[in-house]
Amino acid sequence: MNDIAIPSTVAIVGGTGALGGGLARRLARAGLTVVIGSRDAAKAAAAATSLAAALPGSRVTGLGNLAAASAAGLVVLAVPFANHRATLQEIAPALAGKILVDTTVPLVPPRVARVQLPPEGCAALAAQQLLGDGVTVVSAFQNVSADSLQSDEELDCDVLVTGNKAEAREVVVGLAERAGLRAWHAGSLENSAAAEALTSVLIFMNKRYGGVHTGIRITGIGDGAAG
Amino acid sequence: MNDIAIPSTVAIVGGTGALGGGLARRLARAGLTVVIGSRDAAKAAAAATSLAAALPGSRVTGLGNLAAASAAGLVVLAVPFANHRATLQEIAPALAGKILVDTTVPLVPPRVARVQLPPEGCAALAAQQLLGDGVTVVSAFQNVSADSLQSDEELDCDVLVTGNKAEAREVVVGLAERAGLRAWHAGSLENSAAAEALTSVLIFMNKRYGGVHTGIRITGIGDGAAG
Repeated sequence: MNDIAIPSTVAIVGGTGALGGGLARRLARAGLTVVIGSRDAAKAAAAATSLAAALPGSRVTGLGNLAAASAAGLVVLAVPFANHRATLQEIAPALAGKILVDTTVPLVPPRVARVQLPPEGCAALAAQQLLGDGVTVVSAFQNVSADSLQSDEELDCDVLVTGNKAEAREVVVGLAERAGLRAWHAGSLENSAAAEALTSVLIFMNKRYGGVHTGIRITGIGDGAAG
Repeated sequence: MNDIAIPSTVAIVGGTGALGGGLARRLARAGLTVVIGSRDAAKAAAAATSLAAALPGSRVTGLGNLAAASAAGLVVLAVPFANHRATLQEIAPALAGKILVDTTVPLVPPRVARVQLPPEGCAALAAQQLLGDGVTVVSAFQNVSADSLQSDEELDCDVLVTGNKAEAREVVVGLAERAGLRAWHAGSLENSAAAEALTSVLIFMNKRYGGVHTGIRITGIGDGAAG
């Protein structure tokens, strides 16, 4: 665990999707105030109502993406790569001075099992370039199975946390731990390319080895427990 | 284990280096005939003599890189990225119809803990482009600690095997298993970017978390044992 405070209110932009919904669920269950964002505010509100009903005592609301980002101290971006740039442009006015946690994997259908990194090097670098220095982009959660996140099962996957500021990475390591995941400082934002690329490898392996949800663990360090 | 035959003689070009030397040792110990290659044939011969003395009954010889590649049915390339292109050009005449196992990580000193993939996408794709369709490039072994390979300890790291031909990948999966490693089909050669990038993440973590040799395991599949 870490000593750096996680903002008490976290927005999940794209929180009606599979990965975003899973993160919203895990974080709300851990006691954080969660604002689900969607392009469709009504859809976000419905998802929030459903999640709040499933988790008595939790604090979950739903808003349009920009309003959700405005309402939170930390913003998680969980939209398909095809919507990455447009969503960043939409929420940028609400991000100044905040940490943006980019979960994006630059999958290019139909060949999602093939690494196809963007010209910027990776999606997280593209986000940082678009947002400029006033926003701290941290990349994480690319390799976690959305299905597993949405369940109550223990998560057998580590999170690689990359970003150019160690203090911001530390906040996101703590956030992942609150979600029940073991997380690691994995270097500067360029290193998000490793996590982003690895997702296509895992998608390939899920097909190749049949009906599995692969993930990764870092070995040679720690004891396999969260922290 | 697999049913596809591994050539009985394997060359390790760059076999006097840390990773190459470790692979040579593990493969010789497993009973394969190993030809250590080096730019300096005398240095290769000395390394072979030393290894053969350490492993009674093993079959190890040392030659210049081109002669080593010519003598083997499968060639492993284990040279620093700075020598990647030049070494490929040197050994290309000996590779027609063979599998080249590229272990190269495109590290660019001094920032080796930062992902810096080459314009081709990854080193393995660069090798395939240079060698053309007459050689089957398979990428593997990027994430294994050279120190651990050179020891007798059990290896707590999986090998991601990428390449465009499943049969060739299967040969290399078998080769890794002979070296005592668990290995996986990880997709087409583009996917080598994931393994190559991950090495900078592991280097970062080795520093950040202090004196460790990190590696990776794939979760959600298999039982953690070789095979």
